[in-house]
This record gives sequence, structure tokens and C-alpha cells, in this order.
Amino acid sequence: MARPVVLGVVGDSGAGKTTLNRGVVRILGGSGQVSYISGDDYHRYGREQRGELGITPLDPAANHLDVLCQHLGHLRASEPILKPNYDHRSGNLGAPSYVRPNPYVVVEGLLNFHTERLRDAHDIRVFLAPPERLRRNWKLTRDCTRRGYTTHQVLAELDRRERDVDTFIAPQRAHADIVVSFMPTDSDDPARLDAHVILRGTLKHPDLSPVLGLEGEGPTLALGEGPTLARGDGEMLLKIPGDMDPDLAAELEEAVWARMSYASRLRASRLGEFTIGTELHRSESLALVQTLLLYHLVSTRATISAGDDPHVWHPPRGTGADSALHA
Amino acid sequence: MARPVVLGVVGDSGAGKTTLNRGVVRILGGSGQVSYISGDDYHRYGREQRGELGITPLDPAANHLDVLCQHLGHLRASEPILKPNYDHRSGNLGAPSYVRPNPYVVVEGLLNFHTERLRDAHDIRVFLAPPERLRRNWKLTRDCTRRGYTTHQVLAELDRRERDVDTFIAPQRAHADIVVSFMPTDSDDPARLDAHVILRGTLKHPDLSPVLGLEGEGPTLALGEGPTLARGDGEMLLKIPGDMDPDLAAELEEAVWARMSYASRLRASRLGEFTIGTELHRSESLALVQTLLLYHLVSTRATISAGDDPHVWHPPRGTGADSALHA
Repeated sequence: MARPVVLGVVGDSGAGKTTLNRGVVRILGGSGQVSYISGDDYHRYGREQRGELGITPLDPAANHLDVLCQHLGHLRASEPILKPNYDHRSGNLGAPSYVRPNPYVVVEGLLNFHTERLRDAHDIRVFLAPPERLRRNWKLTRDCTRRGYTTHQVLAELDRRERDVDTFIAPQRAHADIVVSFMPTDSDDPARLDAHVILRGTLKHPDLSPVLGLEGEGPTLALGEGPTLARGDGEMLLKIPGDMDPDLAAELEEAVWARMSYASRLRASRLGEFTIGTELHRSESLALVQTLLLYHLVSTRATISAGDDPHVWHPPRGTGADSALHA
Repeated sequence: MARPVVLGVVGDSGAGKTTLNRGVVRILGGSGQVSYISGDDYHRYGREQRGELGITPLDPAANHLDVLCQHLGHLRASEPILKPNYDHRSGNLGAPSYVRPNPYVVVEGLLNFHTERLRDAHDIRVFLAPPERLRRNWKLTRDCTRRGYTTHQVLAELDRRERDVDTFIAPQRAHADIVVSFMPTDSDDPARLDAHVILRGTLKHPDLSPVLGLEGEGPTLALGEGPTLARGDGEMLLKIPGDMDPDLAAELEEAVWARMSYASRLRASRLGEFTIGTELHRSESLALVQTLLLYHLVSTRATISAGDDPHVWHPPRGTGADSALHA
């Protein structure tokens, strides 16, 4: 049996981690195929104690990051863990859960890329960086509808956390293989967010060239703002318009799926779903980003199964994105 | 820093594990020097769920033994763990605790020697085997006074567990380095229990010969009932009379302490204490057994500090008891 593949999705509270992961986990086959870990479960203190100590959950000192790292190591080695549990409704820590290793491990968290050891525990590292106004909106809606906070409490908490966001959360962006920003458009339709996706050369990305620029309004790929080196170590910026034609989006998804033919059975479920309150919506740009993550999960697993693990415990990180992306 | 030394004390519920360990832990310096782990914290189910499933806590399937083994491995490697917690009063599992690695790890449990991997995770393996009548008495007193059970509940539970004791607990005796049985005497004084201590050749025991047999009524050492091999792989039986003269007991303790001069600062605290209800008693035979365990903890640590780890993760177990024991 090949070792499990670990996807880490990091971002500030309310950045959309759970929404992004939900479709990915479902397509992979749910809880029988995926060990899903929330970094919040590794909080050192309950909500009340944090208040007494004057510490936010964004502070590494308020989290058992060493134990999180230990647990990711066990899951990568196909060993079970006894995972702690943090209850967002009550703000209390509870009895732990026995988590079996599965072919895929999806981890979301605030600080999962904070140390080098933690970063090395992931095969695919994604950072979510929505514009601040959008994130505040998402957090407000989520915390008030699903976690029982009042509007006033959430806004006060956002202020309290501001410094720790800059100090601890934002710097992790530099360590991601993929940086995803969903961006508001002129339209106020939340299903029409553009996606700006930075693809760094630390992963081998799929060849999107056949479907880029076919229509004037489709996704575009350009050099990113980061350093671009001769051997393809730089970054590319993939822009996915939120108002993209659904047929074109489907075509682009097909192109990615075609690169992982061994996984065609996974295509039954639909991607791109998200909720506002209890209303279900669908976003083409979300679906496409999820497809990209699935590509990396499935192809990394295929590579490992073939006996060529691209990412051992203290790995020399892979260099060079797919040349097609840089053509 | 030398790796921590792990003492495991296994025995049925009520066999006296906590009483034996209390003095050992105190002498070693308490919680700053010793990571104390109870195997009961690794119960898979709470009391109510065990009742529904018709499973006793003595069944390996009712415990996360794989995680216990994992955690002992981390502590041995000087790494922290997030230890689960089982509350004996409520019968519920609670939030886990962060446990730092310390120079010594003392583990008590029902099933800590159940698998070879678990056995290998310990440096010193002690099995407690009091006569059944004595153990039932101890368990009855403890469960009624400190765990809120009624007499009827404890007796019914003892019956329910009988088969699992034979199937799962008793066989572990064969894997211990030291087997301790406190035995009732003609006197009904609980402070006067004899101790029968089987010392197996899997550990290098201290030389007790200078103080053996000086008085007719002191401790005696004889060949044990187990196989005795030419090169000292057999077992010896140390009998410590409960009514031993306190001066002689002190002399014998001195002889063991003299073998670990580097640890003389540890001798301030008194050993042999135990409670009946809220009454404090002292037993010379208990003190002597505790001294023996301290000897093994301190001398194993000295050996490891000297760069000569006698017990790596999958060790060839040491052979040959101290020749003086077999002279």
C-alpha cells in the first residue's frame, strides 16, 4: 500500500477552507477514503481560557502544533491517531476521536505551514487569501449562523485578532504551492467570484494550455509576481473569471480530468457547491480550483504508488512546474 | 540528553499498581521528573458504552493499545504527547492532556504487555500478582471509597470480568522482568504482608547477597520455578517477610542504594507508604520492592547516559541476571 497523500489548506478564519475542501473530500469518496483533520482541534485552550489568558487562537502558543505535526507523520506512515476535538459551538475541548489512516489526508488549519516540519508534513500546500472585506463577510455569516455568535462578538473578535493575522497567518502564504484568492466582481452574485490562482513551481501543475484563451472570456495564464527562474521555479497566475461560460468551464475541467484517466470513476459527483445560510449555490471558478486540487491529490498518489515518492519526510521539494504552463 | 527510561507496572484492576508506583514517582521527584501514564486513559469506550457493547475494559478491543504504544514511543524519543483521559468517577472520556517528556516514564495498566511492540516499549516490566482474595478485597475497598461504586456493583463486575482476566491479564505475567506478589500472613495487619518477588534474568538485578540470610528472619533468595539456564537466564525468588525487623529492612535498602551512589540525593523521601481509606500505613516489604524498582530506573538511566542503551526500540533483550544473585 502506498502511503497517504496529504493536502493542507491554510487560511485565516473564514477564508473558505471548509467550503473548498468539502467538494474535494466528497469526490475522493468521503470518510472511507479521506482522513479529514481540522487544525482547530489542536487548540491548547478552550474559548474561556483564551479570554483569561488574553491569547487568540491564531497564536502558535495557543495550539499544540508539535502534536499536529506528530499526528500528520503517523497518518502519512499509515498509522492511526487519537485526534483531539475542539467544539466551535461551545468553545470547549472534548474527548478525542480515533482516526484511521486513509489513502488521502485533507487538513485545514490556521497555522499548518507555521514551521518547516509542519510544511514538510504536507504533499500539497494551499493558502487561501481572499480580500479582507470578503473574508470578514464570510466569517460574520458563518460565525453568526453556525457557531452561535452575535454580530458584535464577531466584529470585536476580528479586531482583537488583527495583529496576529499579520504576524502568524499571512507569512504562511510564502510557503504554499498554490495560493487561491476568490475575488468579488462587479456583479454582486456570490456564485460569480473570480478566482486568482498562483501556481508555484514547487509542484508539477497540469497542462492547461489546450483550453486557455480559446474564447476571449475564458481563463488566462500569465507570469506571476514572484521570482521566475530559468528552470521553471517561478510562479504563474491563473485567472478564472467568475462569469465564465459553464460549457467552457466544463471543457477546462475535462482537460484536467483527462490528465488523470485512472481517476475517471471519481467524476460522478459535482463540484463547486457552496452554501449561503441554508441555500445551495454553485460556482464555476470554485469547481475549477477544486479540480486542480484533485489533480494534485490523485497524481501524487499515482506517483507514490509507482514507487516514486516525490516527497519524503524531509524532502528536497520538487522544482519545475509543468513546462506547458510556462510556454 | 539521554532518552527517558520507561517502567511498566501491569496487573489486574485492584492489584496495587498505583500504590506501588506512588512512592517510586515521589522519590524520583514527582511530576517534573516523571511522566505518569495510566493505561486506563486509553480506554476506547466510556462505561455506559461498554455496558451496551457487553465488553469489559480488560478486553484489548476495548482499548487503544496501538495509540498507547505510539505514545510510549514518543515519550521514549523525548517528544511530548496529547494523552487521552478517562475519568474513573464518571466513567467518561474527557479532553486530553499535554504531557511533556521527562527523564522517567512510569506507566501502569491492564494490558501494557499484551503485544510484543508494547512490551518492547518498556525498559523495566513489572507484573503484580496478588492472591485473588486479596486483590478482590483491595478492589472492593478502592472502588467503593474512591470511585463511587456500591459493594454489589463491584462484586458483579468482578464476576463479569473473570473470563477476561484469564484470557488477557494473566498471560502477561510471562513477559515481566519482575513479578511481585504481596501475600497475606497469619497476622491480619495489612502493613505486614510478605512480598514474593520473582527476579527474571531479563534484567540485571542488584547484588543483594551481603544482606541476605544474616538474620534467620530476613529476606531469602532461592531459585525460582521458571527455567534456570546455565548462563543466568533463569529466575530467582526473593521472599521478603512482612514482619521483618525495620532495622534489617533499612540495612537491605541501604545495600541497594549503595549500588546507585549517583542517586543518593533521592533518598530523602520515605517509601512503603499506603492508605486504607484515609489512614496512612507503612509496609517494609512494599518499601523494599519500591527500592528495587528505583534501582532499575536509576541504573538503566545511568547506563543510557553513558551511551550504552541496553534497550533500543526492537531490542535483543538483555540476558543474565547479576551473577551474585545466582552465586
